[in-house]
Amino acid sequence: MRLPEAWIISVGNELLNGRIVNTNLAWLSRKLILDGYLVRCALTVRDDCEDIVMAFRLAVDKGASLIVSTGGLGPTFDDMTSECLSKALGRRHVLNEEALRMVEEKYARRNLPMTEHRVKMAMMPENARPIYNAVGTAPGVMVEEGPTLILALPGVPSEMMDIFERVEGLIRSRAPPMSYVSVDLVVRGVPESEAAPLIEEAMRRFSVYVKSHPSGQELGLPILRVNVTSSSPSEEEARLNVEGALRLLSERFRERGGNVEEAQAHSPGSG
Amino acid sequence: MRLPEAWIISVGNELLNGRIVNTNLAWLSRKLILDGYLVRCALTVRDDCEDIVMAFRLAVDKGASLIVSTGGLGPTFDDMTSECLSKALGRRHVLNEEALRMVEEKYARRNLPMTEHRVKMAMMPENARPIYNAVGTAPGVMVEEGPTLILALPGVPSEMMDIFERVEGLIRSRAPPMSYVSVDLVVRGVPESEAAPLIEEAMRRFSVYVKSHPSGQELGLPILRVNVTSSSPSEEEARLNVEGALRLLSERFRERGGNVEEAQAHSPGSG
Repeated sequence: MRLPEAWIISVGNELLNGRIVNTNLAWLSRKLILDGYLVRCALTVRDDCEDIVMAFRLAVDKGASLIVSTGGLGPTFDDMTSECLSKALGRRHVLNEEALRMVEEKYARRNLPMTEHRVKMAMMPENARPIYNAVGTAPGVMVEEGPTLILALPGVPSEMMDIFERVEGLIRSRAPPMSYVSVDLVVRGVPESEAAPLIEEAMRRFSVYVKSHPSGQELGLPILRVNVTSSSPSEEEARLNVEGALRLLSERFRERGGNVEEAQAHSPGSG
Repeated sequence: MRLPEAWIISVGNELLNGRIVNTNLAWLSRKLILDGYLVRCALTVRDDCEDIVMAFRLAVDKGASLIVSTGGLGPTFDDMTSECLSKALGRRHVLNEEALRMVEEKYARRNLPMTEHRVKMAMMPENARPIYNAVGTAPGVMVEEGPTLILALPGVPSEMMDIFERVEGLIRSRAPPMSYVSVDLVVRGVPESEAAPLIEEAMRRFSVYVKSHPSGQELGLPILRVNVTSSSPSEEEARLNVEGALRLLSERFRERGGNVEEAQAHSPGSG
């Protein structure tokens, strides 16, 4: 099967001066693969309009089905992704009323006035759709250009993840149907900080996405709910991925004195 | 001052499936900045010749002074960076005798015969220069294309760093002269593993490069030599960077019970 191609564009000087390792790229790549895409290329550019335009143009011209960018959506002078995206698409850069309401609501709640810099976060390419940012302020920007869906996200990882997951259903619906397998483990007696490297190991070794949720305490022991998902055009493969990760995680948690049980049966299904 | 522009190309499917975070990119960016370059753009592509060619062509066409690639130099079928570099430059892909000697020496030492796959690592664009790989097997590939210097390195971090540092003098000599400041700390009583996150913090907060070398023991306490360097067109700035990092590191080492002293006076100079 030929998968739709995704490109990832990371914007920010800090990514090209060696101070920051681009973890957004790894997170998005994994998500997009599980959503049914081939991640074909990633571009990292500076806060420089010429280069941001170049990156979007290249991805559109190479026939990307999906472009996801991170960074450059904030209020300061060097946040220019949205404006440069308008340039790359040859569209007018306009005030988006829905985005303006989202931004105004954020500041009203803190009794802060709107300023030119804050309004800037509601400026988008013509016909774009703002995506609500529950964690920060700047909305995401979603726009279609022919067969290409473009999604511009903030660079702060928690905001980037929140907005991405809001539109993940749409992103997934544009890829071929994938079989999903999702299993929850309930782990008693291992704190989340100790679980983090084990989860990273499982994600490195298996094509799965693992998320942990602290779920209170019981008799003084921390309870962690660990969700392991995989998807693949082949249901068999998705199931094997999840099973491999579950075996590894259970072993590791038990080595650390944890009590592990499965919370529910496998739930395969087409997405 | 207008700095020469460097592009970094990372090759490998594993970088686009979310399993690996690209730490090579952060390491190279920092090095290149301290060597006097502006890192303009980074491209990550799959093990796919069309895309590898696209990445090199784009960087050459945009007037890069320096292109550094990582990954795809090994013996397997999906290691194709050198061959695709030849294609991108429109050059013949030929057996480089000097590279062949380097590769043969590696296998002879282990009493292993040369095979087609091993010879492949000595194939390079016409007029390329192999760079010895002391850590692994595949030599680096250096080639000039008009005003652009191109350096293809393996993807394994220790090999990549070793080869890069072998030619760093040449790379630096092609950039405007920078002022260097280098200071060594001698730290007693803090093991290197405990020092690692402190060093990362200093590198995140200051434009410096920090390297630690375990230097034996004294009265049962580990001795660590910590080298802090910075460079900048302005000597003042390089000095301030190093001083800031030294202050932070000394404080952090002392918090952990370490004894810290400076090993030698500042040694500024033009490079």
